[in-house]
Amino acid sequence: MSYYKVAVLGATGLVGREMVKILEERDFPLKELKLFASERSAGKKITFKGQKITVEACSEGSFHNIDLALFSAGTEAGRFYGEIASRQGTIVIDNSNAFRMDKNVPLVVPEVNADDILNHQGIIANPNCSTIQLVLVLKPIYDELGVTRLIISTYQSVSGTGKKAVQELMDQTESIMAASGFKPEVYPHQIAFNVLPHIDIFENNFYSREEMKLVRETKKILHDEQIKISATAVRVPVIIGHSESVYLETRKIISLPELENLLNKAAGVKVLNDPKNNIYPLPVMSKFKDEVLVGRLRKDLDVENGYHLWVVGNNLRKGAALNAVQIAEHVIRNF
Amino acid sequence: MSYYKVAVLGATGLVGREMVKILEERDFPLKELKLFASERSAGKKITFKGQKITVEACSEGSFHNIDLALFSAGTEAGRFYGEIASRQGTIVIDNSNAFRMDKNVPLVVPEVNADDILNHQGIIANPNCSTIQLVLVLKPIYDELGVTRLIISTYQSVSGTGKKAVQELMDQTESIMAASGFKPEVYPHQIAFNVLPHIDIFENNFYSREEMKLVRETKKILHDEQIKISATAVRVPVIIGHSESVYLETRKIISLPELENLLNKAAGVKVLNDPKNNIYPLPVMSKFKDEVLVGRLRKDLDVENGYHLWVVGNNLRKGAALNAVQIAEHVIRNF
Repeated sequence: MSYYKVAVLGATGLVGREMVKILEERDFPLKELKLFASERSAGKKITFKGQKITVEACSEGSFHNIDLALFSAGTEAGRFYGEIASRQGTIVIDNSNAFRMDKNVPLVVPEVNADDILNHQGIIANPNCSTIQLVLVLKPIYDELGVTRLIISTYQSVSGTGKKAVQELMDQTESIMAASGFKPEVYPHQIAFNVLPHIDIFENNFYSREEMKLVRETKKILHDEQIKISATAVRVPVIIGHSESVYLETRKIISLPELENLLNKAAGVKVLNDPKNNIYPLPVMSKFKDEVLVGRLRKDLDVENGYHLWVVGNNLRKGAALNAVQIAEHVIRNF
Repeated sequence: MSYYKVAVLGATGLVGREMVKILEERDFPLKELKLFASERSAGKKITFKGQKITVEACSEGSFHNIDLALFSAGTEAGRFYGEIASRQGTIVIDNSNAFRMDKNVPLVVPEVNADDILNHQGIIANPNCSTIQLVLVLKPIYDELGVTRLIISTYQSVSGTGKKAVQELMDQTESIMAASGFKPEVYPHQIAFNVLPHIDIFENNFYSREEMKLVRETKKILHDEQIKISATAVRVPVIIGHSESVYLETRKIISLPELENLLNKAAGVKVLNDPKNNIYPLPVMSKFKDEVLVGRLRKDLDVENGYHLWVVGNNLRKGAALNAVQIAEHVIRNF
């Protein structure tokens, strides 16, 4: 068995910390673990397998001799260090939007399109959180029935935005409970006891970038530009766990029990589908879960090949850090 | 001008109190206002135009000589007292699910189907909150373009459940902020910092009753059994204001500016559609608003006659109490 020098960039962020935790949980074969962040966060210590590792400020030389780097440092830093690190031989798995739609960069959810990893040229992109949980549930349906159309409405937690957003939700909640004032900073409007149909910036077609990520990334991961996809992305006052109300149309038609059976066999998916006994996926359930949860399985009331699903995933784990580490595990199998 | 003896049943509930407030705000022509509730709430006092009115326990004789009664007392009490009161000549406007799908009972949103009121036989039903805000926005589109299909995902506030649910959200929020324990009582699961894909009971087709209300009531109000409608109803930790992500298909096709123009002219509807300037409907905006808010107007990315909208309404006012009082205003015009 080989052991690898691994770096995490953005190690002090919500996803970065989760990456470190998951490398430990899954006992990733490490020769050395380096933790990088911006200058502001340098000097912080993060515990890994009982030892404190000091976070270093990232610089152009940081990735010298690093085999594998997991990035969760935003689009700008992702692009800048991704190009530097990959040029000097480090394999980069980047969680930002920097490279996702780049033709030379595989966009991978291992249970769905692990084979794409083989085509990497030094950089592999980790999809957006809301895409990962969607395609994981879609994959068995796509393979068995064909999927022609998707309409998605999301219910996304604030941890998807980052630490400051979690703090803003908590602070605003406290202010409202105490009937005192507050000023939104991370989000353009109040997020506590409210929902915002606004995630990321708006594009010229009036869809938000988050909505377009779901559209573009899903097509790329499934290698199918023909699927019709539209989405509405909404931020909700939940801390961890994204939920999605998914409508899909298929080529072939199956019964609900057959659909449930199909999803039950899918890797990384857990079916919770007994609504009369109050059993369905909830974001609070996803906190310590690696599987993506699916339930509320229904046939459309009018369209014979239409189905409705309710999909919940942990946006920090499978939606980000876990998926990145799983990609790393695939990479080292072919190292 | 005539003046009427009016009663409110369920006067101490969230919707009942709002009914009393709206009767005052709109200066409804009252000869007398009687307030009824269950025995448990009898004796409470509610202020109306500066005077305290004592709430009385409702009994079979309560509606003697009452011209108009606004009910917001749940399905069982609605059915029981609705039949008694209407038999003795009181016109009942009931906010529960008791009579909504009854062929002999008009189901009315005045801006949409006021004419149906004329066919009443003593009872008029107030639609469900999520239906009212939907049909109000649909009506101008339906009339101008024809609507053939709807797929709706809702984001519904806890005040739709009632006072105890608002208290549960507040108490749970406090417990979670203090890291102390709690036991869900009103809802089957935690509602604070969570979302529940479960409103009302589940029917045998795996849709919740709330979802089926949207389906059945929309068809009845628009007098069109041919529209394809499916919905996913979700409770979110918001206090007041229901939001809906609405996908619709039309017979005729228009541009987005034309659609915006159409909605701008619609009675009871306010367009907030400038996402690049962070302008879109939010539940917190609906608190003191009578209009239903609509924004995030988009064309479907693939289907030429497909449109996406984001619709927000105050579930206690237009979604319940205001609509009931508006029905009452129509009734007295024909008294």
